[in-house]
Amino acid sequence: MIVPRTGIGVDVHAYAPDDAPQPLWLAGLLWEGERGLSGHSDGDAVAHAAADALFSAAGVGDLGTHFGTDRPDYAGASGTRLLAEAARIVRAAGFEIGNIAVQFIAQRPVFAPRRDEAQRVLTEAAGAPVSVSATTSDHLGFTGRREGVAAVATALVYPI
Amino acid sequence: MIVPRTGIGVDVHAYAPDDAPQPLWLAGLLWEGERGLSGHSDGDAVAHAAADALFSAAGVGDLGTHFGTDRPDYAGASGTRLLAEAARIVRAAGFEIGNIAVQFIAQRPVFAPRRDEAQRVLTEAAGAPVSVSATTSDHLGFTGRREGVAAVATALVYPI
Amino acid sequence: MIVPRTGIGVDVHAYAPDDAPQPLWLAGLLWEGERGLSGHSDGDAVAHAAADALFSAAGVGDLGTHFGTDRPDYAGASGTRLLAEAARIVRAAGFEIGNIAVQFIAQRPVFAPRRDEAQRVLTEAAGAPVSVSATTSDHLGFTGRREGVAAVATALVYPI
Repeated sequence: MIVPRTGIGVDVHAYAPDDAPQPLWLAGLLWEGERGLSGHSDGDAVAHAAADALFSAAGVGDLGTHFGTDRPDYAGASGTRLLAEAARIVRAAGFEIGNIAVQFIAQRPVFAPRRDEAQRVLTEAAGAPVSVSATTSDHLGFTGRREGVAAVATALVYPI
Repeated sequence: MIVPRTGIGVDVHAYAPDDAPQPLWLAGLLWEGERGLSGHSDGDAVAHAAADALFSAAGVGDLGTHFGTDRPDYAGASGTRLLAEAARIVRAAGFEIGNIAVQFIAQRPVFAPRRDEAQRVLTEAAGAPVSVSATTSDHLGFTGRREGVAAVATALVYPI
Repeated sequence: MIVPRTGIGVDVHAYAPDDAPQPLWLAGLLWEGERGLSGHSDGDAVAHAAADALFSAAGVGDLGTHFGTDRPDYAGASGTRLLAEAARIVRAAGFEIGNIAVQFIAQRPVFAPRRDEAQRVLTEAAGAPVSVSATTSDHLGFTGRREGVAAVATALVYPI
């Protein structure tokens, strides 16, 4: 019997300061005209949560283990690059990927118009189905105050 | 081999303003004497998180996709109605539902005395096992300050 | 066909007040020189989230149901004791445990150097694989302000 393993990943990024604006990358997409995020990489919380859920399911560490600030080759790396690399690491550790589900939590940007596009880009990066959904925190907490964005993900992997 | 898919859903609702009080509906139950929540629907964060976890697992969008503010027929809809409709949509998309697990996060109301009742009502709405648990955020964050409530859910579905 | 059930658990603990300092216990480990947490038990949010995810997956209540403040025998109980007892309760209810995945969310302590050790201790307590990962909330929210710590967990169990 093949027994799946579940994993979980939360990722949070603060908005970049006004005096050092950044483009906004989320779910592997560039969001023109939206305020960008800070981060060692591109701040793509959706892709990062997905990657961390994969690592969590496989029990092989986390984003810091594999792409931390001691890995300058990943400075500024795109979320899709990190997710693709996470999928490669998890497969190399002996797992197949069932699916990844990510929920984006923030007041902005409005995800619905680009949800299908986001799912396609992340699914291609992971080589496995990635579903993307979105919600707000009803103007509460740090996402409600627009200090930053959050994403929460879960994943299933299978030992092979 | 039948491969399950995992999904995740977080839902947050702020309390209704004092000058526009609402009854409190949570987990499909009316909580007499408790402060109510605001929302396009009845603000039932527990039922909403469960529905969003189902959509997430099936990869068919989210609450906004199916019951958004552009769908006036769902204005004020009950949490159990939305959960039942979400289950119908997910089954129509070709999935069977394994289970849904929801955790309620807030200082109030105290869930324990009505946990079994909540599980029965939501399980009947979804047509699949729904477990309900509860915790507080130890007086921290927006739930700790009693600005609102949160719920987080996960679900498993199976392609048929 | 054996159908797994998924569960979820979030746990939050505030730091102990300065005039009543506590040792820090997290993921079953003592963290020397780090600020401790308050709690009916030892405040081990990582072990607690893992236990709550197990209860959630099995649909048998939550930490409050089994170890609440009305159970003085659990006052000050260690996180590993609670996790081991949760695993016993879930097995007694007719489930085998697939795996548990926990993510720690806080600015401090830095988890990476002791991640393997944490996984070993919690895996032994649960009698099933427990993966541990960590992230920060990028200095946002209550964990970012160092008011407390959070952990989020998911688990899979199988009816037997």
